[in-house]
Amino acid sequence: MARHPFDEAVALTRVAATAQEHGREAPAHFDGQPHPAYANMVGPFGGVTAAQMLQSVLQHPQLLGEPVALTVNFAAAVADAPFRIEARPARTNRSTQHWTMTLLQTDAQGVDATVITATAVTAVRRDTWSATDSPMPTVPRPMDVARVLPAKRVRWIERYDMRPVIGPIPEHWDGAESDSLTQLWLRDDPPRPLDFLSLAAMADVFFPRVWRRRAVMTPVGTVSMTVYFHAGRAELATTGQGHLLGQARSQSFFNGFFDQSAELWDEAGHLLATTHQIVYYKE
Amino acid sequence: MARHPFDEAVALTRVAATAQEHGREAPAHFDGQPHPAYANMVGPFGGVTAAQMLQSVLQHPQLLGEPVALTVNFAAAVADAPFRIEARPARTNRSTQHWTMTLLQTDAQGVDATVITATAVTAVRRDTWSATDSPMPTVPRPMDVARVLPAKRVRWIERYDMRPVIGPIPEHWDGAESDSLTQLWLRDDPPRPLDFLSLAAMADVFFPRVWRRRAVMTPVGTVSMTVYFHAGRAELATTGQGHLLGQARSQSFFNGFFDQSAELWDEAGHLLATTHQIVYYKE
Repeated sequence: MARHPFDEAVALTRVAATAQEHGREAPAHFDGQPHPAYANMVGPFGGVTAAQMLQSVLQHPQLLGEPVALTVNFAAAVADAPFRIEARPARTNRSTQHWTMTLLQTDAQGVDATVITATAVTAVRRDTWSATDSPMPTVPRPMDVARVLPAKRVRWIERYDMRPVIGPIPEHWDGAESDSLTQLWLRDDPPRPLDFLSLAAMADVFFPRVWRRRAVMTPVGTVSMTVYFHAGRAELATTGQGHLLGQARSQSFFNGFFDQSAELWDEAGHLLATTHQIVYYKE
Repeated sequence: MARHPFDEAVALTRVAATAQEHGREAPAHFDGQPHPAYANMVGPFGGVTAAQMLQSVLQHPQLLGEPVALTVNFAAAVADAPFRIEARPARTNRSTQHWTMTLLQTDAQGVDATVITATAVTAVRRDTWSATDSPMPTVPRPMDVARVLPAKRVRWIERYDMRPVIGPIPEHWDGAESDSLTQLWLRDDPPRPLDFLSLAAMADVFFPRVWRRRAVMTPVGTVSMTVYFHAGRAELATTGQGHLLGQARSQSFFNGFFDQSAELWDEAGHLLATTHQIVYYKE
């Protein structure tokens, strides 16, 4: 059976470190490249880039525990060319570990330029009292909602089965203002068992909130995104290939940057991740 | 007139770099130390640590623009001892700039250990269409709400005038579960004109959501926090020494980590910042 395109996209190859740094934990170096199946308008879909940054942690030989938090800063557009990710365990405690990651690409001048910076927290979780204060909204089940196949301007959209419940992408770009809320069912296409990498990528599937809010297609670009994981490997395994309910909305649009907060529940109503990002918009 | 304790706390001294790194932008180095007026149960109040990390960016000679996003990872407890912050402009674009920062302290073995990692995005903002999707809740005005002076277990609490509207810290630690929502008016004590540094600190003033949710005082510690700034220097100047309305709640408590999302509005109802954090809890 052919490998799932997402697995191809997040495959990294560990390489020997080329530079020695002193006095701190040395980073591990990984080679990777954007995958054509997840191409965006310019460069790759940011969700897959976020997953690649997390992958460098998950494949690091010194990894402790499972992901708790991930922040990815999109410092420049990722070029359709090979990249290197450096992942460093900045601090390892008894049950938590803090990571810094950098994605580099060789620029036109032959210099390794920083394209993405990121941090992550991993932890060995223990069973504790647990609860949710964000119950899943009451919505129709995924198979009772029509899948939307948007105009195929970008490749990565085809890699997700998306079923908007409310707040679809505007049909008419007429400047009619509304709220910024979208709810949709989503899963990989073809289906793929959920893991931390695909969950991180799905945190970035929502079309830009400013498009929903204004019905004006202004240019946008995420500059920083954070994902908090509220599930362990066992909970993700239970979700399997089922749909996730995603909900996203903004709180502020101010002079060129808006925020987005989103939640991802599985079909059983477990809140698996909450995620936040700040996005540049042009006008 | 004596300097405000917050200004003393965020004062950093730039020092000559001690190590040379090659191939990337060199970091600037700053010396600082925890301030006794902002002491927490163990080490300093995390909000002031976040402000110190941001200060290293604001004082950096290569700074471009104003803060848009800040993520601070609390990798270890900050000791009551001097520290060094390294701040590096990882990528400078035409109107945005990406930063990585590290706070180091010399450990018992004489080694410089990473205590805090952080990233920030700064930008030269342009006037654009702006709007908010998170209007300020309708609440009594600050002077109509009683200031609460909690038991003085920790010093930093005294540095904030806090007036809980709903969801105060539990009076009875009887395990009676409720929701995780708190709304309160707050400002510096003594009053101080709002700036990006004090706004970043105020993003961390909320007592742990798990205490509110459970009425059980379990040990906690923030592991990562993110602040998105939705105001420029002019908007902060307009706020001046007025109170901010803070609102905080959690979405998930799962096996040792809970999240917190919060908003900060000024008295005129402008949403100045949204902020998110993930917090360790013991049981």
